[in-house]
Amino acid sequence: MTTTTHAFDTAISLTDNGIGQHTGQTTPEYANMVGPFGGVTAAAIVRAIESHPERIGEPVALTVNYLAPVTDGSFDVVVHPVRTNRTNQHWTAEVLQQHGVTTTATAVFGIRRDAWSDTQAAMPGVPDPESVPDATVPGPVPWMRNYDMRYVQGDVPTEPDENASSTTTLWVRAQPARGLDFAALAALSDVFYPRVFLRRGAMVPAGTISLTTYFHADGAELAAQGTDYVLASAHAQRFARGYFDQSAQIWGRHGALLATSHQIVYYKD
Amino acid sequence: MTTTTHAFDTAISLTDNGIGQHTGQTTPEYANMVGPFGGVTAAAIVRAIESHPERIGEPVALTVNYLAPVTDGSFDVVVHPVRTNRTNQHWTAEVLQQHGVTTTATAVFGIRRDAWSDTQAAMPGVPDPESVPDATVPGPVPWMRNYDMRYVQGDVPTEPDENASSTTTLWVRAQPARGLDFAALAALSDVFYPRVFLRRGAMVPAGTISLTTYFHADGAELAAQGTDYVLASAHAQRFARGYFDQSAQIWGRHGALLATSHQIVYYKD
Repeated sequence: MTTTTHAFDTAISLTDNGIGQHTGQTTPEYANMVGPFGGVTAAAIVRAIESHPERIGEPVALTVNYLAPVTDGSFDVVVHPVRTNRTNQHWTAEVLQQHGVTTTATAVFGIRRDAWSDTQAAMPGVPDPESVPDATVPGPVPWMRNYDMRYVQGDVPTEPDENASSTTTLWVRAQPARGLDFAALAALSDVFYPRVFLRRGAMVPAGTISLTTYFHADGAELAAQGTDYVLASAHAQRFARGYFDQSAQIWGRHGALLATSHQIVYYKD
Repeated sequence: MTTTTHAFDTAISLTDNGIGQHTGQTTPEYANMVGPFGGVTAAAIVRAIESHPERIGEPVALTVNYLAPVTDGSFDVVVHPVRTNRTNQHWTAEVLQQHGVTTTATAVFGIRRDAWSDTQAAMPGVPDPESVPDATVPGPVPWMRNYDMRYVQGDVPTEPDENASSTTTLWVRAQPARGLDFAALAALSDVFYPRVFLRRGAMVPAGTISLTTYFHADGAELAAQGTDYVLASAHAQRFARGYFDQSAQIWGRHGALLATSHQIVYYKD
């Protein structure tokens, strides 16, 4: 029997340099246009916190700020539990390279409990993933090749036509298959190409500068998704002179709202 | 002529203890059930960054994490520009008291530029604020008395009836009047009572643990709102075993989407 490590696990693999101190390596598989895919940096931070001996609970909230591109090579991840309450814990994190801090982050981990619960949002009505063609773009963006992407609405524009809607909805899963965990869900929250491309019908310079994800599922609910597709839907609210926002939902196939996520994106036009 | 300082300006007034180092004082006017109103803490952080001599641009994104209640008395605000790019700047901030760190934050400030712009979201269709009764609750929450609140939908439940919707929409402005600026807008992004009260028709223990606001207006667009009402609308997406999310929009009367804001809230039920 041969066991191969999934490229995602390689990309977020961290060596331990002491409590809360890690070193990782960028990998060509998760490269973006400039630096690595923002989702994989978010995932490495989740993994570093999960590895901390004082960690309690599971991810509830994560904000990652992209200060500068991570350059190819090694990077340090430093995570620090600032305060541990009875049922939640607040973290700060940084990614550093020789040229300085590339990424700052804060996170809340928490212990869930029995409480009245309900999903307020409605899952978009869409066809099954098996009936939607795989539109994985074999284009210039390496990290996208790690996902099987089946666009239901708002796929990557190939014609210079403006669109009235900013909404993209797709079925997506890791390619090759990999079980869903918090690190993978953190990465999926950044799986959308920039909303401004869709509205403008063209690629323009754009990059996420701050990403916030709220995790609504616990580890058992994530594990229950297995390697199945999730439904990811994103839209913008305002494009305002160089910055636009994006709000997204990540749904399990059977209607579990696994995460909601928000980001602010720099663009030039 | 007598000039009185607005209670909001008193609440976010900071003394300067060196570059990026400030001390503030809690005020009874902005007290919440426990500690001060989260919005006023967010506003003090915005004000501290705005006061920094190296600050460039205006607020684009702010994430504030509430680790522990700020106790009555003095608090320190420390802000640090981690990286300054050509058109944006990334900040970290902390609020500290003798018992430790109460609040962590990250912020992005940016310089806006001429670029294709558009508002994607639709402003809720509502009656004018003048035709909606002032429902300011003279209840146990002092900070609410600083706002003229006119609920269009989802006002504070007074009967123990569950509601199917988690949406609250209200016209709101400072009381007495005060011109809108980034600090005031940061505070307004936390002006909603907890969504779980509305769904459950009852007050239950609940508190914001992380708040992210995206500012879409620049200073001139904010100043143009004057002291007028803004329309604030919020809803939840999932209530999941002790944590729920809230997404909000803040609109100017004439349709400018000034800010979008998101938070994750702890609750017991």
